[in-house]
Amino acid sequence: MAFILTFLGKGGTGRTTVGIAAAKRLAAEGSRVLWATCEPGPTASLLLGATLTNNPQTIAANLSAVRLHAPTLLEQSWEEVKKLEAQYLRSPVLKDVYGQELCVLPGMDRALVLNALREFGASDDYDTIVFDGSGNADTLRMLALPEMLSWYARRSRQLFAESDIGKTISPFLQPIGSAVLNVSWSAEDLVNQQAAPARDANQLLEEGKAALADPRRVAGFLVATQEPGAIASARYLWGSAQQAGLTVGGLLLNRAVDAGAIASQFAPLATTTLPESNDWQVLSDSLPNLREQALHAPRPVEIDVKQRQVRLFLPGFDKKQVKLTQYGLELTIEAGDLRRNLMLPPQLSGQSVKGAKFQDGYLIVTL
Amino acid sequence: MAFILTFLGKGGTGRTTVGIAAAKRLAAEGSRVLWATCEPGPTASLLLGATLTNNPQTIAANLSAVRLHAPTLLEQSWEEVKKLEAQYLRSPVLKDVYGQELCVLPGMDRALVLNALREFGASDDYDTIVFDGSGNADTLRMLALPEMLSWYARRSRQLFAESDIGKTISPFLQPIGSAVLNVSWSAEDLVNQQAAPARDANQLLEEGKAALADPRRVAGFLVATQEPGAIASARYLWGSAQQAGLTVGGLLLNRAVDAGAIASQFAPLATTTLPESNDWQVLSDSLPNLREQALHAPRPVEIDVKQRQVRLFLPGFDKKQVKLTQYGLELTIEAGDLRRNLMLPPQLSGQSVKGAKFQDGYLIVTL
Repeated sequence: MAFILTFLGKGGTGRTTVGIAAAKRLAAEGSRVLWATCEPGPTASLLLGATLTNNPQTIAANLSAVRLHAPTLLEQSWEEVKKLEAQYLRSPVLKDVYGQELCVLPGMDRALVLNALREFGASDDYDTIVFDGSGNADTLRMLALPEMLSWYARRSRQLFAESDIGKTISPFLQPIGSAVLNVSWSAEDLVNQQAAPARDANQLLEEGKAALADPRRVAGFLVATQEPGAIASARYLWGSAQQAGLTVGGLLLNRAVDAGAIASQFAPLATTTLPESNDWQVLSDSLPNLREQALHAPRPVEIDVKQRQVRLFLPGFDKKQVKLTQYGLELTIEAGDLRRNLMLPPQLSGQSVKGAKFQDGYLIVTL
Repeated sequence: MAFILTFLGKGGTGRTTVGIAAAKRLAAEGSRVLWATCEPGPTASLLLGATLTNNPQTIAANLSAVRLHAPTLLEQSWEEVKKLEAQYLRSPVLKDVYGQELCVLPGMDRALVLNALREFGASDDYDTIVFDGSGNADTLRMLALPEMLSWYARRSRQLFAESDIGKTISPFLQPIGSAVLNVSWSAEDLVNQQAAPARDANQLLEEGKAALADPRRVAGFLVATQEPGAIASARYLWGSAQQAGLTVGGLLLNRAVDAGAIASQFAPLATTTLPESNDWQVLSDSLPNLREQALHAPRPVEIDVKQRQVRLFLPGFDKKQVKLTQYGLELTIEAGDLRRNLMLPPQLSGQSVKGAKFQDGYLIVTL
């Protein structure tokens, strides 16, 4: 399982450059690195000095690069799905649909990119994946997809159980979900929702949630300049990342004169000042050990079963901006634009929230 | 009907700043301007010097500002939809669903923001809407939604006609579509797909397509600095905008020393060099007449019925990168990442493509 590293920050702060420097540094240290982007523009190819392709290509020792192109990703599994559908459904609806057409469906691209990261991460070909996404709330929404989808799955089961539509709609959703997740399925699975594909899909979502929650598997770093807009964006993305469940390992500061004043706004995170340089070696050398640093950063969520406490690190928020709702074992936290549905461990069941307070950037909920 | 103006360019090139300067300039000239952003971060509030709210507020003479917040937009029509559903469907599925929850559905935000722009544009409260979006391919995908959706509607009618699933799934999709588009509907509409809501929705999509095709209604401007990545992004976005059907009115160049060399890469577009200044007045004054300039820019598509020609302006592409497919009156053009489905006028029916050639950045298709 590869370590997935991503960088968050306002456009123009040097996010992509820092990501490439990190990829080069890790590759030089012997890690097998895949640098992956989902940005369609030409910027990355210019910086890398190599034309990006839709399949990974080696661009230096230990370093590969790939462009995650949603239509290509979908096309790779779509024909297979149609064959299965034709075989098992009385009136297949997808026979005349091309995988490419579905990419126009909003949101499909995000799911496909996340799944590609999952597959590359599980392939044993790479130790580290440096992911160059949009670097804003969109990347966070993508990483939070497994939690959202599993919440939707729970919610829909409940809704569908009360409706006739449920049974009819599910075989239609199955092949699309299957194409996105590359999960195999059989005739029996189509009539039995408790069978393999539903279980496989749930398993994948659980694995995705577990990976995001583990800073040895996924971590993000903030990138900023000293410009007030860039600092404000970094603070906003920091809070949003915690809310999405992504560990933020530190702040990387480009073109900054007074780093000290800025660093204090991001305590307890470590701040590293990067030199202004066109030399990749200089940039790479100036980076801290990102993997190590992520392990010592505050965790977005800690659940202390003994003390019956849930501790959420929510820098930049105060109590008034946060809304808590409890529904059985599910705790919903709304802060800023992100909504999070946290499943509590069974040991904390049967209890409603007794209190909530803010302390040193943490929201501490006692059950 | 308001004129909708948006700015495209790489992050950090000053896109939002230029958009605010344009809004101030137009407001000073007497146009009633709404400056609208869908970016959740704090950057815009810092630049505007006003905290953004989810409903328009006046921030200066003739100038209002609003943040288009998808959950708020949806919440405003969701309760209404649920009431209608409960009244008319035997087993309503939405009764326990909160509008906010649906915002987690990928793509929903894009549709809600576009619809809000449509409603503000039709409200007669504003002459101009300056839209501060992501400024990249995402904004273009949003503007191209009506064309995509109407293509999907045609495609689904065809697919559903051949399947049992069609009839069962459609009442489920109706209320969601309705909430996004704020279209009213009645009991009769639920059983008759040819009735009001389907017609209303088609009408809206046709209006959306017509607005995007008309540079008096919608136009985009490129923003760049002289940095190679910013120039490459602007060229990429220029081609993609044409492909999405958005007229690009010109290039606005920030912090550039040798504007001449850059301008030649964007001919026949007009290039304007902007001074480096923190003074809004200086910035506003340096802008050209954006509305006027958009009218003289190349149109993304021109259909010449007499000459039986379709002329597509596709700067930055060559013949090899473009794929044409014809299906009845529908011409599908794939260039770069965007796919466009063009409905030809009835006068051009019954003819297949006779030839296609590239000339001065135009793809000329003869039927």
